[in-house]
Amino acid sequence: MTTLSPDLRERLERAPVAGLSAQMRKRGYDTVTIDGVRPLPGAPKLVGPARTLRYIPFRRDLFASHGGGQNAQKQLFDAVEPGEVVVIEARGLDGSGTLGDILALRAFARGAAGVVTDGGVRDHDAVARIGLPVFSAGAHPAVLGRLHVPWEHGSAIACGGASVLPGDIIVGDSDGVIVIPPDLVEEVVDATLAQEDEDAWIAERVAEGAKLDGLFPMNSAWRERYEAGLDG
Amino acid sequence: MTTLSPDLRERLERAPVAGLSAQMRKRGYDTVTIDGVRPLPGAPKLVGPARTLRYIPFRRDLFASHGGGQNAQKQLFDAVEPGEVVVIEARGLDGSGTLGDILALRAFARGAAGVVTDGGVRDHDAVARIGLPVFSAGAHPAVLGRLHVPWEHGSAIACGGASVLPGDIIVGDSDGVIVIPPDLVEEVVDATLAQEDEDAWIAERVAEGAKLDGLFPMNSAWRERYEAGLDG
Amino acid sequence: MTTLSPDLRERLERAPVAGLSAQMRKRGYDTVTIDGVRPLPGAPKLVGPARTLRYIPFRRDLFASHGGGQNAQKQLFDAVEPGEVVVIEARGLDGSGTLGDILALRAFARGAAGVVTDGGVRDHDAVARIGLPVFSAGAHPAVLGRLHVPWEHGSAIACGGASVLPGDIIVGDSDGVIVIPPDLVEEVVDATLAQEDEDAWIAERVAEGAKLDGLFPMNSAWRERYEAGLDG
Amino acid sequence: MTTLSPDLRERLERAPVAGLSAQMRKRGYDTVTIDGVRPLPGAPKLVGPARTLRYIPFRRDLFASHGGGQNAQKQLFDAVEPGEVVVIEARGLDGSGTLGDILALRAFARGAAGVVTDGGVRDHDAVARIGLPVFSAGAHPAVLGRLHVPWEHGSAIACGGASVLPGDIIVGDSDGVIVIPPDLVEEVVDATLAQEDEDAWIAERVAEGAKLDGLFPMNSAWRERYEAGLDG
Amino acid sequence: MTTLSPDLRERLERAPVAGLSAQMRKRGYDTVTIDGVRPLPGAPKLVGPARTLRYIPFRRDLFASHGGGQNAQKQLFDAVEPGEVVVIEARGLDGSGTLGDILALRAFARGAAGVVTDGGVRDHDAVARIGLPVFSAGAHPAVLGRLHVPWEHGSAIACGGASVLPGDIIVGDSDGVIVIPPDLVEEVVDATLAQEDEDAWIAERVAEGAKLDGLFPMNSAWRERYEAGLDG
Amino acid sequence: MTTLSPDLRERLERAPVAGLSAQMRKRGYDTVTIDGVRPLPGAPKLVGPARTLRYIPFRRDLFASHGGGQNAQKQLFDAVEPGEVVVIEARGLDGSGTLGDILALRAFARGAAGVVTDGGVRDHDAVARIGLPVFSAGAHPAVLGRLHVPWEHGSAIACGGASVLPGDIIVGDSDGVIVIPPDLVEEVVDATLAQEDEDAWIAERVAEGAKLDGLFPMNSAWRERYEAGLDG
Repeated sequence: MTTLSPDLRERLERAPVAGLSAQMRKRGYDTVTIDGVRPLPGAPKLVGPARTLRYIPFRRDLFASHGGGQNAQKQLFDAVEPGEVVVIEARGLDGSGTLGDILALRAFARGAAGVVTDGGVRDHDAVARIGLPVFSAGAHPAVLGRLHVPWEHGSAIACGGASVLPGDIIVGDSDGVIVIPPDLVEEVVDATLAQEDEDAWIAERVAEGAKLDGLFPMNSAWRERYEAGLDG
Repeated sequence: MTTLSPDLRERLERAPVAGLSAQMRKRGYDTVTIDGVRPLPGAPKLVGPARTLRYIPFRRDLFASHGGGQNAQKQLFDAVEPGEVVVIEARGLDGSGTLGDILALRAFARGAAGVVTDGGVRDHDAVARIGLPVFSAGAHPAVLGRLHVPWEHGSAIACGGASVLPGDIIVGDSDGVIVIPPDLVEEVVDATLAQEDEDAWIAERVAEGAKLDGLFPMNSAWRERYEAGLDG
Repeated sequence: MTTLSPDLRERLERAPVAGLSAQMRKRGYDTVTIDGVRPLPGAPKLVGPARTLRYIPFRRDLFASHGGGQNAQKQLFDAVEPGEVVVIEARGLDGSGTLGDILALRAFARGAAGVVTDGGVRDHDAVARIGLPVFSAGAHPAVLGRLHVPWEHGSAIACGGASVLPGDIIVGDSDGVIVIPPDLVEEVVDATLAQEDEDAWIAERVAEGAKLDGLFPMNSAWRERYEAGLDG
Repeated sequence: MTTLSPDLRERLERAPVAGLSAQMRKRGYDTVTIDGVRPLPGAPKLVGPARTLRYIPFRRDLFASHGGGQNAQKQLFDAVEPGEVVVIEARGLDGSGTLGDILALRAFARGAAGVVTDGGVRDHDAVARIGLPVFSAGAHPAVLGRLHVPWEHGSAIACGGASVLPGDIIVGDSDGVIVIPPDLVEEVVDATLAQEDEDAWIAERVAEGAKLDGLFPMNSAWRERYEAGLDG
Repeated sequence: MTTLSPDLRERLERAPVAGLSAQMRKRGYDTVTIDGVRPLPGAPKLVGPARTLRYIPFRRDLFASHGGGQNAQKQLFDAVEPGEVVVIEARGLDGSGTLGDILALRAFARGAAGVVTDGGVRDHDAVARIGLPVFSAGAHPAVLGRLHVPWEHGSAIACGGASVLPGDIIVGDSDGVIVIPPDLVEEVVDATLAQEDEDAWIAERVAEGAKLDGLFPMNSAWRERYEAGLDG
Repeated sequence: MTTLSPDLRERLERAPVAGLSAQMRKRGYDTVTIDGVRPLPGAPKLVGPARTLRYIPFRRDLFASHGGGQNAQKQLFDAVEPGEVVVIEARGLDGSGTLGDILALRAFARGAAGVVTDGGVRDHDAVARIGLPVFSAGAHPAVLGRLHVPWEHGSAIACGGASVLPGDIIVGDSDGVIVIPPDLVEEVVDATLAQEDEDAWIAERVAEGAKLDGLFPMNSAWRERYEAGLDG
């Protein structure tokens, strides 16, 4: 399983998802955002490698064999490692919970970095109070079994329209959630942080009244000033 | 019309909608959540028996005969009793208001327990300031007549995908809104509160680092400890 | 291009969108709300004449010719005049940003009154911090080019189901956003403010316990009291 | 209950729904089409006054009391009169049948003019073979109870976004289904047939190569020729 | 892998999906229809055990490793056994083909019983001409890779809202497609055929003019006649 | 305006839209299908350069100034040249007609190659009888003005999720409709026809029982046989 070095994690913490998304798009990755999910109020930044969990549609016999007891969902929450992000395929349905307060607490106790589900969350306020970053399709009071059978963990999944493999790097903030294949993450995060510096400098110029024309993107005159470390 | 004893109301105030939903599902009720509605910011818990109101699609002649003056909507808001919840069928359309500040104020003045509509709310901020719990499909500036004719009150309705009869018990919190037939409410609320105690005890154990396996749901070893009132 | 006199702007600032919507509907305008958009948190009231911007679906060749450099989007943000509202047609798609922090900052620096887009917003928190009223379909990290080519500014557009022409008056608050043709705005705002006075007086009576029947709308007895300036 | 004279029925049989819709719109009726429904293959023209049936969402207790035996659905099909159209409110859900072959056969045996449902149809091929005009949201194998409780007949309903009252005149063809209040039907059908004559004459001119400009709608020169009964 | 005896296959060929659905619902299976799919024109009845195929969302790196050559899709079509039904999870997206004429021909050549996909079909007319029963979300010209990576075969999948396991029995006709766990199929098909006999007898009585009341469902008087083999 | 040479038109007539789509995707064009439209029954192949027409949302004042008389829609239908395809932006709304029989007849009389609209069609059967290829979102009886103002012709538009410029080459068949920029059309059609030959040869081998592995796509052994013109 992927683990993030403290240094890489620190750089990812500083990299906005919007910036990572732009760098991924430059490299031909345009379908790597988990759409339709929002962070619970007060959620901190989400960064970590994915642990995946796949739900399939409720069916009486399958729920009887796989829904109760120490099912795939609970196995995963008992096994998640510090710094990992649980990512759940719930087929984008917000009509039941796919996570509740006890499981969120277990993830928190194990040091997980957070949870992303394209389904609903039960016990919304209690989960939000834990302080674990959770991104979901919204609150719903119903238990998992209204719509789902927790089927397996550790497989490739679809979440919010994006493919997620175990070990993919997940980053989430108020703009959304992005999935980065591990072998791209170093390159993408560094390019993002470099671009952030540039954009911050451009933003200062714009705040001072500079026009966009020639500045965003920078022409050679502006770039010269930027590279010289000038202020405007 | 159903009324709630102070004691039953107090128990329902303590019972989370998520817990009530689980108990209803155990009893074969899986289509009793009013989906697609969210509480206005700051809304307190919603508890009370339903008063129903049904809107039908706007049509020129029907709006002329039923839309103006002391229509079915205003009749209901003038008649709602203390502790009751107004529940409105608006066919899940968020493109017009189905409630505005004057009607919300009237409901508040009459001591109503709240309003649930699967349509929009006008005067969103003014309604939120009243302090009445209101659940809706969101804010919209248009008046009711853009989409609706207020047709009748007191009939069975569909709201957010659930059937609601006058007198059904409505409970709403940040997880959503549930509908409980009156003859089930005693049994369901008590089972919910018992389960809440158990879940709270489990949550403490999980916070201390216990694994889910065997604890959630509890095996006999854990149950013995729980029933002995032990802490972990 | 339309400009608003300070006096007209001040009256529009006081006129709720819900009230304007009711007056527009009375005049046969029922399709003038920009639906599916919400204000960024903390957004002040939005008032101003429209500057329009039209995006068309992403296509490789068209993005190559129109997407980069000083494109139609940047031309507009460099040209927006103080008090104007940028209105963007993004076909109601929330799967990419249609505005980011640098462009929002440029609009703010030029004194624009705000932005309305029926697409997404990138750099959500940074945009919200600027203090410019922005209404959108939500946050998304992706750049514009994921879905759009910025095609032209200054044309008639469709935004959130409403037609918007350059110079149409745009007003937005927590209930939503409305579009008012310039030659109707004087009449509509004055009728709205008059009705607001009346509704405020009715609301006081309702808060005192008056019933809706005969009061909302007012019969002649209540109207007599109202016109006499009595309190209840 | 409304009945149609043979003469009025014959005129309605000749009047296209598209033409009736245009005449209704001229009179301020813009929300009188039942949308989202299609005729079964081979369905003849549908004309007749409405008999209404309302389903509400499935709920265990309500289905137990109202779903089985001689329920509201069967009561209506046993009572429908010759020439009437059964119109069913199924909340636009195509995920279960709302009509099957035995009920369609009963309607046919009683001389009903047809059925419109904004839900699904079971036994699709068998129903199509009966020869009764049926408009629906499509085929689905599930029984009614998967989603619905047959609640009542004879009330005002919403079907495909339109209000339908018992006795409203229903007309359906390959363009769709329209609802006409009974007191408008004479005026609307005659205006439609007159316009059809005019449009047929225009179509002949267009087929001969005439341009639309001045002809559609007709200017005075063309109208003179038309009224003189000339051919081109 | 499940195989069907000729006798069981013959009974399933005679059993309408609507009837099977009713029997499944009686046994507590209410989420076993594959919704949102329609048969290609002229498709014969579909009966057979499932072979499953799972697509995940397109991503550049995953398509590079799994999309081309002898991918999971082609492996499955080369391996499908006579009488089996290929069932494809395409997340209900109709914006690309998930099957084209060459693969359909391969399935036909291997004696497959048909294909069900909740995605699109390319080469629609050519596929329809092969004579293989194919159920899909409609035609689309784009290749698979526009939206999908063919990921794996032989796993549990979600198709049209239903869970499908390899070996589940799939039956499709003009009403839709149903999924039956293998250990229920004998019981369900026999109950369906018995009910069909009864319903056919009821339909004859209704065609003769009998009322539904007491007949559908049958009371003891009607049942006595039915069991005596009488005609009316 | 683009015109097609007879030879190019003939090649496009032979090129399936599915094949053109694959070649466009190879060249980086993945958003060039007009989605959500279907051909009217019996429609022949559609081939021709685009004439564009843009509708904007209905608004009382704009419809008064632009909706009646010789509006933009009628101007375009009076001006369409032989072999051209009218393409209409109707924002994907199927709730009104965007084309009726008289306009379709006018297009036919002028020798237009067909019409594509992502809105509805009125007079469905009459339009189908004309024999002009028409692709639409379905039938609807209402006139254009229910939802639209015919605003302008000759501009860039969005139709079914694709950008269309005047002169783009439009090709439609039972798989759907594709948009090809004029400077790509020669290259794309020739590559398509070459691939069709190859696929037809592969299909023959598959029909004879060959496995997909190594054949589709062809390995060197199969390609040698193919290039040698062998039969299997």
